Amino acid sequence: MTNTTGKIFKVTSFGSSHGKAIGAIIDGCPANLDLSEEDIQKELNKRKPGTNDFTTPRKEEDKIEIVSGIFNRKTDGTPITGIVYNKDHHSKDYSKFKDTPRPSHGDFGWMEKYGNYDYNGGGRGSGRATIGHVIGGAIAKKLLETKNIKIISHVTQIGNIKTKNKDLKTIEENIEKNPLRCGDLDLVKSMEDLILDKKSKGDSVGGVVETIAIGVPAGLGEPVFGKLDADLAQILMGIGSVKGVEIGLGFESAKKTASEINDEYYIENNEIKTSTNNNGGIIGGISNGMPIVCKIAVKPTPSISKVQNSINLKNKSNEEISIEGRHDPCICPRITAVSESAVAIVLADHMLRSGFIHPSNIN
Amino acid sequence: MTNTTGKIFKVTSFGSSHGKAIGAIIDGCPANLDLSEEDIQKELNKRKPGTNDFTTPRKEEDKIEIVSGIFNRKTDGTPITGIVYNKDHHSKDYSKFKDTPRPSHGDFGWMEKYGNYDYNGGGRGSGRATIGHVIGGAIAKKLLETKNIKIISHVTQIGNIKTKNKDLKTIEENIEKNPLRCGDLDLVKSMEDLILDKKSKGDSVGGVVETIAIGVPAGLGEPVFGKLDADLAQILMGIGSVKGVEIGLGFESAKKTASEINDEYYIENNEIKTSTNNNGGIIGGISNGMPIVCKIAVKPTPSISKVQNSINLKNKSNEEISIEGRHDPCICPRITAVSESAVAIVLADHMLRSGFIHPSNIN
Amino acid sequence: MTNTTGKIFKVTSFGSSHGKAIGAIIDGCPANLDLSEEDIQKELNKRKPGTNDFTTPRKEEDKIEIVSGIFNRKTDGTPITGIVYNKDHHSKDYSKFKDTPRPSHGDFGWMEKYGNYDYNGGGRGSGRATIGHVIGGAIAKKLLETKNIKIISHVTQIGNIKTKNKDLKTIEENIEKNPLRCGDLDLVKSMEDLILDKKSKGDSVGGVVETIAIGVPAGLGEPVFGKLDADLAQILMGIGSVKGVEIGLGFESAKKTASEINDEYYIENNEIKTSTNNNGGIIGGISNGMPIVCKIAVKPTPSISKVQNSINLKNKSNEEISIEGRHDPCICPRITAVSESAVAIVLADHMLRSGFIHPSNIN
Amino acid sequence: MTNTTGKIFKVTSFGSSHGKAIGAIIDGCPANLDLSEEDIQKELNKRKPGTNDFTTPRKEEDKIEIVSGIFNRKTDGTPITGIVYNKDHHSKDYSKFKDTPRPSHGDFGWMEKYGNYDYNGGGRGSGRATIGHVIGGAIAKKLLETKNIKIISHVTQIGNIKTKNKDLKTIEENIEKNPLRCGDLDLVKSMEDLILDKKSKGDSVGGVVETIAIGVPAGLGEPVFGKLDADLAQILMGIGSVKGVEIGLGFESAKKTASEINDEYYIENNEIKTSTNNNGGIIGGISNGMPIVCKIAVKPTPSISKVQNSINLKNKSNEEISIEGRHDPCICPRITAVSESAVAIVLADHMLRSGFIHPSNIN
Repeated sequence: MTNTTGKIFKVTSFGSSHGKAIGAIIDGCPANLDLSEEDIQKELNKRKPGTNDFTTPRKEEDKIEIVSGIFNRKTDGTPITGIVYNKDHHSKDYSKFKDTPRPSHGDFGWMEKYGNYDYNGGGRGSGRATIGHVIGGAIAKKLLETKNIKIISHVTQIGNIKTKNKDLKTIEENIEKNPLRCGDLDLVKSMEDLILDKKSKGDSVGGVVETIAIGVPAGLGEPVFGKLDADLAQILMGIGSVKGVEIGLGFESAKKTASEINDEYYIENNEIKTSTNNNGGIIGGISNGMPIVCKIAVKPTPSISKVQNSINLKNKSNEEISIEGRHDPCICPRITAVSESAVAIVLADHMLRSGFIHPSNIN
Repeated sequence: MTNTTGKIFKVTSFGSSHGKAIGAIIDGCPANLDLSEEDIQKELNKRKPGTNDFTTPRKEEDKIEIVSGIFNRKTDGTPITGIVYNKDHHSKDYSKFKDTPRPSHGDFGWMEKYGNYDYNGGGRGSGRATIGHVIGGAIAKKLLETKNIKIISHVTQIGNIKTKNKDLKTIEENIEKNPLRCGDLDLVKSMEDLILDKKSKGDSVGGVVETIAIGVPAGLGEPVFGKLDADLAQILMGIGSVKGVEIGLGFESAKKTASEINDEYYIENNEIKTSTNNNGGIIGGISNGMPIVCKIAVKPTPSISKVQNSINLKNKSNEEISIEGRHDPCICPRITAVSESAVAIVLADHMLRSGFIHPSNIN
Repeated sequence: MTNTTGKIFKVTSFGSSHGKAIGAIIDGCPANLDLSEEDIQKELNKRKPGTNDFTTPRKEEDKIEIVSGIFNRKTDGTPITGIVYNKDHHSKDYSKFKDTPRPSHGDFGWMEKYGNYDYNGGGRGSGRATIGHVIGGAIAKKLLETKNIKIISHVTQIGNIKTKNKDLKTIEENIEKNPLRCGDLDLVKSMEDLILDKKSKGDSVGGVVETIAIGVPAGLGEPVFGKLDADLAQILMGIGSVKGVEIGLGFESAKKTASEINDEYYIENNEIKTSTNNNGGIIGGISNGMPIVCKIAVKPTPSISKVQNSINLKNKSNEEISIEGRHDPCICPRITAVSESAVAIVLADHMLRSGFIHPSNIN
Repeated sequence: MTNTTGKIFKVTSFGSSHGKAIGAIIDGCPANLDLSEEDIQKELNKRKPGTNDFTTPRKEEDKIEIVSGIFNRKTDGTPITGIVYNKDHHSKDYSKFKDTPRPSHGDFGWMEKYGNYDYNGGGRGSGRATIGHVIGGAIAKKLLETKNIKIISHVTQIGNIKTKNKDLKTIEENIEKNPLRCGDLDLVKSMEDLILDKKSKGDSVGGVVETIAIGVPAGLGEPVFGKLDADLAQILMGIGSVKGVEIGLGFESAKKTASEINDEYYIENNEIKTSTNNNGGIIGGISNGMPIVCKIAVKPTPSISKVQNSINLKNKSNEEISIEGRHDPCICPRITAVSESAVAIVLADHMLRSGFIHPSNIN
């Protein structure tokens, strides 16, 4: 089990979907950072279920309680523990999956590996485990703000519908105006229709989420096995349902020639910039001062009410399965909060690792 | 600096393109594994430069010397140190890049971060640093062979030319029959033509490399921050020039519905399988016993002789640059050896982490 | 901040003396271990304050609550989170230490390092932080029991009064018969008198605690930087008030010749043993199957009501201080629970690291 | 296997007594530190064998070669690899120990654990493995010098002969004037006589080595599991033959009352000091600005020519053994170089961890 991420700014996540509580300990956050429960609650609310037609109807307040690490409303350098108690868990919905793994869900792997698996709501394999990411990410974001680093995640694709490029300011405004957290308002209606159509058929649909970090200084990343893009890829690929990660142009680069996509340098007002940002702000594993841009491919939520083939592990027999209950017809909008947090955690860790933030005391 | 990867099977890489030597220490390999210099040399030869028209003409034997960790031709549980001495380095080619970072190369980040940067041949930012990966990977592969796990990497795309799916046996045979290590012989000629065309224009081209691991048991991977796909993404994204990583369907998943791509289970001869493998052998971060399939997007080698815009960091002025010297017009064929090694390192580590291989002594 | 110990069996500790809660997350405990809150409570009760005249009168139930990691009364391989809510904290006692560090206490270092220091009750520098050790240790002990490993800690010295060597069974019985957890009943009365005498004078006294682990197999420990004795020394020296650690003969070895203290091997009934155990069960950093024996030197609790010289950090002036309030006149009896836990944590980690316990599933 | 120590300043050690080479990789040393082979050679010479009557007659030049990590005579932030090739190994001396573990030596543990054990000269269990410590320590010392931190190790006890306390300057001068590296010249002759007497009887004798670090700022150490004293204890206890570690008064503290040994604060010329330094510069796991003082108990070298009882692991029978060949009658003088290095490694790591030295670039 490895439930800790980070080398200096370390997030240790715990808890399962239907257990008593879920949360995270953040160790390595320097002292003297202003921090309140509201700072974390605000981020948790972004991934909270049950807020609209496009997410699971499970009702959870996801109310954060900080039980350590804060003194006089500031961090004091000791581990910060954030806990969310589970409330609306309907474990009865899940008993039929005890021996029957849901297709494309983690159930089978967990059963094989650990033997004693809390199959209720996917246990710790549930998307609820990302509450730990968001608690860690909220604190990371506060820390990064002290260095004027900002991170934004938005939905750029649902099924085959892809957004057009917009400037950052527009994206930032738009995502707050629609439940899909899409940066391109022109496409929101058709995306919503697509999701509701799949939902009505007991199905779900995938998409793409882009995360952008601005204000990141040049010099983050530790070649050759602690590169910034590598660490971003690790945390992003580790989010449930993610099947692909791109930095900058990503797979588009494969089709190109160097003369087409090399990012050329120039100096303007004593600032070094590149005329394009096809590398997404990271070259050779080290940030170059341009915006960090990463995309993740999110597969359709595997829980669907359509009948599927599975097996009964106890009886060693084939068996059909239909997953009733509450699930997200498209998880992308809620994943934006998680990918934003994931990127924040990695950047906070690397800001500390590269000496841009003092490890003990930000004052 | 983080030049170590792995938690139990740990590879620490060292050395730079034009320094005295380059190599790796492998710590955590259990005792009693048969291991010789030939085992490593064989893998190094796959990534060796100067072997054909499609790679850099730099001539390096890349001869491995093992100086610790072997007793009676077997590992003895102590750190295995493999060293390759650099021979054919022409440092004079690089002096003009001392203050002028090459576009889309790591130079700028290294200069900013460390101040004292060995700009010769890209220093430690060079592709030569992946010799460490291959030394580690060769040992990992030997270890995995004891559990009948096999790993194959092949080129599936150069520029816009993409291979058709072939069965594994065909791919395995084909990659040894062409210098591009492409699994689809029908396309090799057109891929070669494309590369030579770009080369003749002082340009380079990107591509895609797929790596497949077969025989991996169900149960590898440690959610939520040590997932198998996450660790694969980390090491793969950390290979120089890689800008994207996919597991299974990757970005294609984003366009699909669950009913289209969920991998349904069935039992056949008491073996549990899935009828499709769209998840690429990993669900919820844990392997499910199906082949592990990952793809990487490789950008075109940024070193090109075409004139490009850059800057002079000393003079703080704009400056043009043309990168003469020796480079790869397409790095994909040589990267196959590296991605194969990278995947092997992660799998060996997880086989140990999950208790499939004894940590001290394989006997 | 580094609040995690262990490589596979990892204990992350959190919380401070007067904060909301204190506790630990245990990550890396394999699945299928029977575990209940009672198992942990039993160990916490050993270090609980306020139980007799020889400890601080602070009244704390130290009631454990497990909020994650247990399914069907067994571990399920996910992180186990144990929380103890603080109850009887009198923060008003401490306001005068805000700017005046207590001599030989951690206050000064914490103030310098973090700036924002919770000075109430010593904050996270308090002995209460060892609740995290005990939670982790209780789980480690349960895990070790499955391999018939048993750990016992007892007081062998208070001030200048030292116990005589007793056999393990006697020690084990005796420690439950006296509040000092001393293995030699003949000396308990004089030790108690010594403590009460110092207490009556507003002073405190030091001592020595010995911890013995039996049933540990030969082969634990990872030279050269993960030796078993090294890891034991680390965790033991890290317990508050500990100033020395010995394995086996310890400092007595320095006076001896090899012919006097070498442990000679012999075979009896096919079992390999040593005729003496001067090395305390560990040679060259690896266990040899004999009992592991370690001793720690515990300094007198620095909180005393006698007037001492200190400084005012704000005024930059010298200042006298008298520490009223509640403290332990001799911390040794309560430290036995902590050192027992500390040794258990290291042994559990090494049993996993060396493959004696399966990392995912003990079944 | 765990052959790496440190979290930021990381030393990975490799090699065995009679293998091809022995050495270390230092990863995490910031760029722009002046460093030459001479800097390391100087330290290696202190632990080199064969220099006088009080050490083993094995003749080794122990010549260092740096093969990576230096550019323009300065570190460049990449891993520094130092190699020493073994020359004077007489493997024939050891064949009789193939199945017969030497009493109080690591042989038995290594045989049990790894099966394939290089028994020649103790393999990697040999004291020669500490060459890796000294390479790492030499670099650490150079780094610490940039912050005016100095570390001195000296012999304070051989057998029952103990030195008197001297001031640091005297100790520093004296240790260069005698082969025992003892700080008290009055006792050197009797110590030498004691060693030669034991040597003549085919025996060996133990002792104590003290290491002092001056100039260490207040604020190093990361409670509760990365305390400075804990990390020092770990690395020191991990040196071969060490059986005890003390910080400050050590076991003497156990006999004392708080009023006798508490270190009281005072301010003088705006500097905060303590009137005594019984805590040895570390309280609550954090340095307080006073000299760091640690002592190690060194057992007598277990290799002696006197006949001892052992076993034959192959025949499962009892067997006598006499260890001819070359060994140290007292290892303490040579261990001073190792303990100095060990302390330097920990301090360098913590100076980086606590932000006193910039992690990438000291300029």
